[in-house]
Amino acid sequence: MNPPNTDARRRHDPDVRSFASDNYAGVHPEVLAALALANGGHQVAYGDDVYTENLQGIIRDHFGATAEVFPVFNGTGANVVALQAVTDRWGAVVCAESAHINVDEGGAPERMGGLKLLTVPTPDGKLTPELIDRQAWGWADEHRAMPQVVSITQSTELGTLYTPDEIRVICEQAHARDMRVHVDGSRIANAAASLDMPMSAFTADIGVDILSLGGTKNGALSGEAVVVLNQDAVSHMKHLRKLSMQLHSKMRFVSVQLEALLAKDLWLRNARHANEMAQRLADGVRAVDGVRVLYPVQANAVFARLPHGVSERLQKRVRFYFWDEAAGDVRWMCSFDTTEADVDAFVAALEEEMAR
Amino acid sequence: MNPPNTDARRRHDPDVRSFASDNYAGVHPEVLAALALANGGHQVAYGDDVYTENLQGIIRDHFGATAEVFPVFNGTGANVVALQAVTDRWGAVVCAESAHINVDEGGAPERMGGLKLLTVPTPDGKLTPELIDRQAWGWADEHRAMPQVVSITQSTELGTLYTPDEIRVICEQAHARDMRVHVDGSRIANAAASLDMPMSAFTADIGVDILSLGGTKNGALSGEAVVVLNQDAVSHMKHLRKLSMQLHSKMRFVSVQLEALLAKDLWLRNARHANEMAQRLADGVRAVDGVRVLYPVQANAVFARLPHGVSERLQKRVRFYFWDEAAGDVRWMCSFDTTEADVDAFVAALEEEMAR
Amino acid sequence: MNPPNTDARRRHDPDVRSFASDNYAGVHPEVLAALALANGGHQVAYGDDVYTENLQGIIRDHFGATAEVFPVFNGTGANVVALQAVTDRWGAVVCAESAHINVDEGGAPERMGGLKLLTVPTPDGKLTPELIDRQAWGWADEHRAMPQVVSITQSTELGTLYTPDEIRVICEQAHARDMRVHVDGSRIANAAASLDMPMSAFTADIGVDILSLGGTKNGALSGEAVVVLNQDAVSHMKHLRKLSMQLHSKMRFVSVQLEALLAKDLWLRNARHANEMAQRLADGVRAVDGVRVLYPVQANAVFARLPHGVSERLQKRVRFYFWDEAAGDVRWMCSFDTTEADVDAFVAALEEEMAR
Amino acid sequence: MNPPNTDARRRHDPDVRSFASDNYAGVHPEVLAALALANGGHQVAYGDDVYTENLQGIIRDHFGATAEVFPVFNGTGANVVALQAVTDRWGAVVCAESAHINVDEGGAPERMGGLKLLTVPTPDGKLTPELIDRQAWGWADEHRAMPQVVSITQSTELGTLYTPDEIRVICEQAHARDMRVHVDGSRIANAAASLDMPMSAFTADIGVDILSLGGTKNGALSGEAVVVLNQDAVSHMKHLRKLSMQLHSKMRFVSVQLEALLAKDLWLRNARHANEMAQRLADGVRAVDGVRVLYPVQANAVFARLPHGVSERLQKRVRFYFWDEAAGDVRWMCSFDTTEADVDAFVAALEEEMAR
Repeated sequence: MNPPNTDARRRHDPDVRSFASDNYAGVHPEVLAALALANGGHQVAYGDDVYTENLQGIIRDHFGATAEVFPVFNGTGANVVALQAVTDRWGAVVCAESAHINVDEGGAPERMGGLKLLTVPTPDGKLTPELIDRQAWGWADEHRAMPQVVSITQSTELGTLYTPDEIRVICEQAHARDMRVHVDGSRIANAAASLDMPMSAFTADIGVDILSLGGTKNGALSGEAVVVLNQDAVSHMKHLRKLSMQLHSKMRFVSVQLEALLAKDLWLRNARHANEMAQRLADGVRAVDGVRVLYPVQANAVFARLPHGVSERLQKRVRFYFWDEAAGDVRWMCSFDTTEADVDAFVAALEEEMAR
Repeated sequence: MNPPNTDARRRHDPDVRSFASDNYAGVHPEVLAALALANGGHQVAYGDDVYTENLQGIIRDHFGATAEVFPVFNGTGANVVALQAVTDRWGAVVCAESAHINVDEGGAPERMGGLKLLTVPTPDGKLTPELIDRQAWGWADEHRAMPQVVSITQSTELGTLYTPDEIRVICEQAHARDMRVHVDGSRIANAAASLDMPMSAFTADIGVDILSLGGTKNGALSGEAVVVLNQDAVSHMKHLRKLSMQLHSKMRFVSVQLEALLAKDLWLRNARHANEMAQRLADGVRAVDGVRVLYPVQANAVFARLPHGVSERLQKRVRFYFWDEAAGDVRWMCSFDTTEADVDAFVAALEEEMAR
Repeated sequence: MNPPNTDARRRHDPDVRSFASDNYAGVHPEVLAALALANGGHQVAYGDDVYTENLQGIIRDHFGATAEVFPVFNGTGANVVALQAVTDRWGAVVCAESAHINVDEGGAPERMGGLKLLTVPTPDGKLTPELIDRQAWGWADEHRAMPQVVSITQSTELGTLYTPDEIRVICEQAHARDMRVHVDGSRIANAAASLDMPMSAFTADIGVDILSLGGTKNGALSGEAVVVLNQDAVSHMKHLRKLSMQLHSKMRFVSVQLEALLAKDLWLRNARHANEMAQRLADGVRAVDGVRVLYPVQANAVFARLPHGVSERLQKRVRFYFWDEAAGDVRWMCSFDTTEADVDAFVAALEEEMAR
Repeated sequence: MNPPNTDARRRHDPDVRSFASDNYAGVHPEVLAALALANGGHQVAYGDDVYTENLQGIIRDHFGATAEVFPVFNGTGANVVALQAVTDRWGAVVCAESAHINVDEGGAPERMGGLKLLTVPTPDGKLTPELIDRQAWGWADEHRAMPQVVSITQSTELGTLYTPDEIRVICEQAHARDMRVHVDGSRIANAAASLDMPMSAFTADIGVDILSLGGTKNGALSGEAVVVLNQDAVSHMKHLRKLSMQLHSKMRFVSVQLEALLAKDLWLRNARHANEMAQRLADGVRAVDGVRVLYPVQANAVFARLPHGVSERLQKRVRFYFWDEAAGDVRWMCSFDTTEADVDAFVAALEEEMAR
């Protein structure tokens, strides 16, 4: 490779990949190319640029004529902005105990958003009307934080999926209780690819009010957005985004990344590939004696239980994380750049370590 | 230009620039090249990557052996993380009334950080010991938010500069009162270029405790950082960054931008150029009858007072903002990509409009 | 005095009073009697008791048929609940720099309410339309906390008064800008007594939207309330009060105190007396050479400037506070229990110390 | 009764009591007498009065020489102040799912204190080391709110008790993990009475760091306090109390109530009586066919399951609350003023309704 015209230096081997996280992957080359395209000259800062304006149209193509997009920095930011948007100061969020907003955001929803989370244990990361009803009550009781929104994750933190019908029922239930529905779509592309449906089929079309739309795990450098699907549910989104420290000054560069993903089918190609790699991986490890795959593999994650010592030896060869170290549960994530060879080598390594 | 390999499309004229904001500029080509360099393969997410590790060394080269860098998304995020880091729950921040944290962050310091700002009017955006003393008192009085940190901006929001001696005196005063000093260095490169000194000369070397280091206005796509200069003043910065929604998952791409700027002298070249363009602009407009330049032009901003109608006609030709519309004050910002021709054409346009 | 039937013991001299604060006074005997009256048996907790219900009627008699009262613990609580009620998450409060919410509440409005205060210096603690306009702008600008409410104090922290006309103009101005008006009425009784008008004449009747109604400084043990005057401006006050930690479990005992004050004229008798004592004090000290009374004495406070050494000697005889120690300004407060003899003795002491 | 000298009027029957809440009771006559005793003359506001000073000694007598008391308004306030005191901005609280702070404070801990609650389901409202370990982990992981304090309630929200040994083990576990222990002692008197031990035996003596000390449910009008047991664990309590809107201006009247309760044995008499009434009630209802008492009756609460229709008919005769309406669980609380006749009549009414 020729030395590029920069004082920065390459410091890593671009051929090494792992199964630790879809955030370990880099940027898809087509997204990177888009950044260069949007560069040069001046564009109005803070979102009044032509790339962000154009993105509005792309989002409306995906989510319908009333959808509106607000690019933000990261998934936590998207979630906290979106949830503030659909709650009053006294509002609470019904979510799964395993929800990212509950376990993986350092308390940002509570501390930054002033949000109370009303959590429910689930077998597979998915809420149901029955589970929601365990927390959706007591609206008139001032001693209780008022349940105002149901937040679900699609695909879930456990690699499982809601069907559109399952989400529709949740929306009907929530709306009947004057509550809103938020989807944490950090991996919404993987869900759409797996369901083989447009993203709107399980969001805008069936009553979801607001969406955290993920781009980073789908191949962007850094690009997430809040997508408002129900304009009646929110107001002053720009103020909320700003005060939540999620306003990108040179927003054209976030918007053009989302354009690169969403204008045609890059988002889908990337997600489909990651899902296929997860299926290949699940098929491979299921064939290994002593390894149990834990949840339905419906997106780009594979959870498995295997002997603790095996995991630790395997981690020295390829990076991945324990999910529940005490139980011996591990998580393997595939991403847009995972190759068949990566998967096959990993399965082979697993077989070797199991055999030792 | 060859069509790049992306579904995104160029939608703007890369030859059009303005004097509205240094955030209107794009990314310096050497920074963009760095992004490509850091791409490919997997890197640990959330900051445990080799680019972020390397950035630590670069920051220590600039700010001394105990400095530590925490990349974040944007300037508001850097400020709110840094100020939380040096205050208790009962702490307050002494700052200029014109400080960005007071007037331009949508209340994020108060709402997200729980910070009380104790503001002082200033003639030129600069605090002095006398001005600080107007708010730095009452530590034992629980009825008063406790002044725990002085926050100054270098270069200031009014395009002025503190000398190192002026900052040293502020640090001595603050430390004698058991307070910390924070520098909002959104445009610290412009300050260093103008003072012709290393950045440490007016921060780490003279007692500044914590710094918001700007990259975006200096030519990055999106890259800011909190730099801890006094390790005794803070703890658990990573937790604070995360809960403040400022943790970049693919952090290598922020770190490599800062590397591109700071490894050698791109930061200085960019800042110096922007400053020179501001001087050229100030020289030009000072020669125009009826235009008054308002503050010393010490960095990359020029503030001027001119007839309101002239400003409005001029804005139709080149974008810029009113600073105080009632007073007829305007702000013209130069950036790394402002050209001499841009400046000269703008001065000529101003002359024309003044003459109408 | 007969030993009462309690293990507590009297530990102070009930004949010693000062000019330090109207919070130094105890409880008016008629209020104390009311507590006994409301005691015994069970009453529904948290406000569903008959005393709180009855208080609603009393408040409507004072403030009109749509007024609604929400008893709280203290003035800071009343202000923070009231201001949250009339702001969105992105809202800001325009107030005088000298406002209690800005200088005397430990940052509670910012930290607990997430409120940004937009302050204006005033000569006498009073806002005017011109002063308000210095901060009431920029509603569409997400970079700025949105001015949504004007908060004034009546009587002010400097012992001055707004006329009803002055408040009416502020209400008209605010409403024309889609803003609300809050009155911090910690000393509203003193204002009404001095203006010789019902409290509604300068609140409900002329457009004030929400009121912090003070009882403690007026002779209660502990009794303040938020009074909603414009029902369209607020919702879910009970939730806001609860989450703001201002919900009294045995609320009957707050409500009956407010009943004791407001059912007939105890509130007015107490306030009128305190005001008269302040006038007597002002008259007395004005006659002392070398003492300058600083603001119009319109309620129960007298501010004066006198030699620093005199103040310090005088403080050893009778407690009072410096207001601005550097300037030599002191504050003398009268309360419902201040006697003519107290005032005369204090003036005599002042004369003695001035003569030394 | 002679008409008292007040404009307030008695509006309730002082002979009617219920089993709804110990907050339905009024003030113990000895506490009311103490209020009169502390009245008259001036006392320094905001806690620098002689009654608050004296209370410090009483608290040290109860809790040891290093204990320090900070009177506040209510239980939510005590909890939020205490928990803020022992957490950093990034801290989290491990507590039972049934904890008052989790289910009954309108989200105040999250919204006002910025606290993340890490909850654990329990069979009986009591945490154990095993249960705590389900949440006490991950201190180095910035993605997780950091567990910094264990909060237990004594007696619990379900009327059960920790033995001193059980609390000691929790303290040892917490301290070994560099965590603090908070006791929500809203009903600590009932616990001490039931255990027949001083309050220190299960708090200060065995390692509890900070305590919310309840007075209201024990017979006060309004009187709670934060008691710091471990001075090394906290700082600036007065600032925290003020900014949390929990600073009583006329604090002598809170302190003298706590003196009336705690100086000798009124606290114990009241608690013992309430507990005895609960035992009598439990014994009575256990004898009624079809009624199941749900938890060990160890303090002043009785939880029972009975047919839903019976509960509803019974509620028309005597007030009490459903605890879990779906399950048919009800809660009956006894207080200092519950009489044997109240209990016997209630049991008789229950029998009647069961027999219908």
